[in-house]
Amino acid sequence: MSDFSKLAINQFTTLHQWSLPQAIEGYARHGVHAIGIVRDKLHEVGVAAARQSLRDHQMKVTSHCVGGLLTDSDPQRFQANLQDTRRAIDEAAELGAECLVFVAGGLPEGSKDLPAARVRCLEGLADVLPYAAQAGVTLALEPLHPMICAFRSCLSTLSQANDWIEELDAGPELGIVVDVYHVWWDPNLEHELQRAAGRIVSFHVCDWLMNTTDLRLDRGMMGDGVIDIGRIRRLVEATGYAGYREVEIFSERNWWQRDPDEVVSITKARYLSDVLGQP
Amino acid sequence: MSDFSKLAINQFTTLHQWSLPQAIEGYARHGVHAIGIVRDKLHEVGVAAARQSLRDHQMKVTSHCVGGLLTDSDPQRFQANLQDTRRAIDEAAELGAECLVFVAGGLPEGSKDLPAARVRCLEGLADVLPYAAQAGVTLALEPLHPMICAFRSCLSTLSQANDWIEELDAGPELGIVVDVYHVWWDPNLEHELQRAAGRIVSFHVCDWLMNTTDLRLDRGMMGDGVIDIGRIRRLVEATGYAGYREVEIFSERNWWQRDPDEVVSITKARYLSDVLGQP
Repeated sequence: MSDFSKLAINQFTTLHQWSLPQAIEGYARHGVHAIGIVRDKLHEVGVAAARQSLRDHQMKVTSHCVGGLLTDSDPQRFQANLQDTRRAIDEAAELGAECLVFVAGGLPEGSKDLPAARVRCLEGLADVLPYAAQAGVTLALEPLHPMICAFRSCLSTLSQANDWIEELDAGPELGIVVDVYHVWWDPNLEHELQRAAGRIVSFHVCDWLMNTTDLRLDRGMMGDGVIDIGRIRRLVEATGYAGYREVEIFSERNWWQRDPDEVVSITKARYLSDVLGQP
Repeated sequence: MSDFSKLAINQFTTLHQWSLPQAIEGYARHGVHAIGIVRDKLHEVGVAAARQSLRDHQMKVTSHCVGGLLTDSDPQRFQANLQDTRRAIDEAAELGAECLVFVAGGLPEGSKDLPAARVRCLEGLADVLPYAAQAGVTLALEPLHPMICAFRSCLSTLSQANDWIEELDAGPELGIVVDVYHVWWDPNLEHELQRAAGRIVSFHVCDWLMNTTDLRLDRGMMGDGVIDIGRIRRLVEATGYAGYREVEIFSERNWWQRDPDEVVSITKARYLSDVLGQP
């Protein structure tokens, strides 16, 4: 009954508690064998040690987080972020990650020109895609909630991600991440998920707390909020997606303060009850 | 040069400082002769006193705020909110308000069924529209930012408001409020504004602060944030809208704590520099 074979945990869920080797060992100890990796955490230990640890614990890498941030109007910073995205692609290839999560970036400092930021990001994406294709890595566009448009992601909706994909006319090196937290409110969710059929390469879950206190770091555990996660999972899977369900919780005030073993235990229980809908 | 004939101030901007008679007197003293009225503030003094005060200060009412909240799954509460919306329509008629702002409502307590909440709201709206038509009042649908979808408004985008208007097939008793705060992030903004041409009955301005600390009560004064207000104003006015630009700032930590005369003075200056774009 308790099948955790498609459960992945993104390392952000235990960000303050565990290093990468600790997270790999910890998740595996709880019977979870897929992880989303945070770049800063990878850099603390290096790719070789990470690969060894992944092998030792039969751990698969679902996502590597993140590349992108290609909205800068300063040419030097724009080029530096392009270069950094290429490094992230290399890392994703070395880790055998299913995708590199691509976060667009927000408005450059002092700018109010959102349409221009979007154009720059799309151009940067076009620039870096052949590199991803050659490395055999899928860049996964993640539309992030409109409330973090200003400082984090000018890619704000599934509709926009679908439009970008149509415009770029790319191969399997370009996909989409669907995170329930970012898209649950979208009146066109069902239609845009259908449009994204075949492009969805990663599916993230957490919950929206009714009393959210922070725009970025106050996500809830599945079941503690108001998202009908089961409905969105079924819609995503109806498009043909058959991959992992990756739990990713940013939670400064709650889950990042808790004992990480407790976090993983509760994650597993809520995965069954609130993602799979088992009684 | 300094033309304030199309500047309106919504009473929310001085919510903690001034009663309705004080706001009417205060705005007029600064040469602003159009006001958006808050229902609670109206109820403190009554419609007769409000009308007298409006006459005394040659003050026009742009918007009456708010009616709606028609998402409840409990039939009694749903009917009570319908009845309350009818009362708000009566008030708007008595005040000669250009519109009654319609806020959809969020998820009912304990519910995760967002599609059902949207269906109920649309049904309630259809129910109350003939009453508005008979009273000669325009219900102005205000799509609110997706970040307050859960507790305040399941009407989240201009696209959705346009869809509802198409579905309802109503006359001039149904319009749209465009508030830059709620729509600035929308990748389809230009297209959806064009779709809304002829239906826009109210245009609200404030700003999005880069370091927003609250999902509802931390809006910025025009010029203090990252919204290109002038661009959105031009897009709205290119659809044929020639009405007021109404300043509406919810600001628990800043503007609601200040001397209200200072708030109005700064509002006027920023209206010229950041809404009209005058040097």
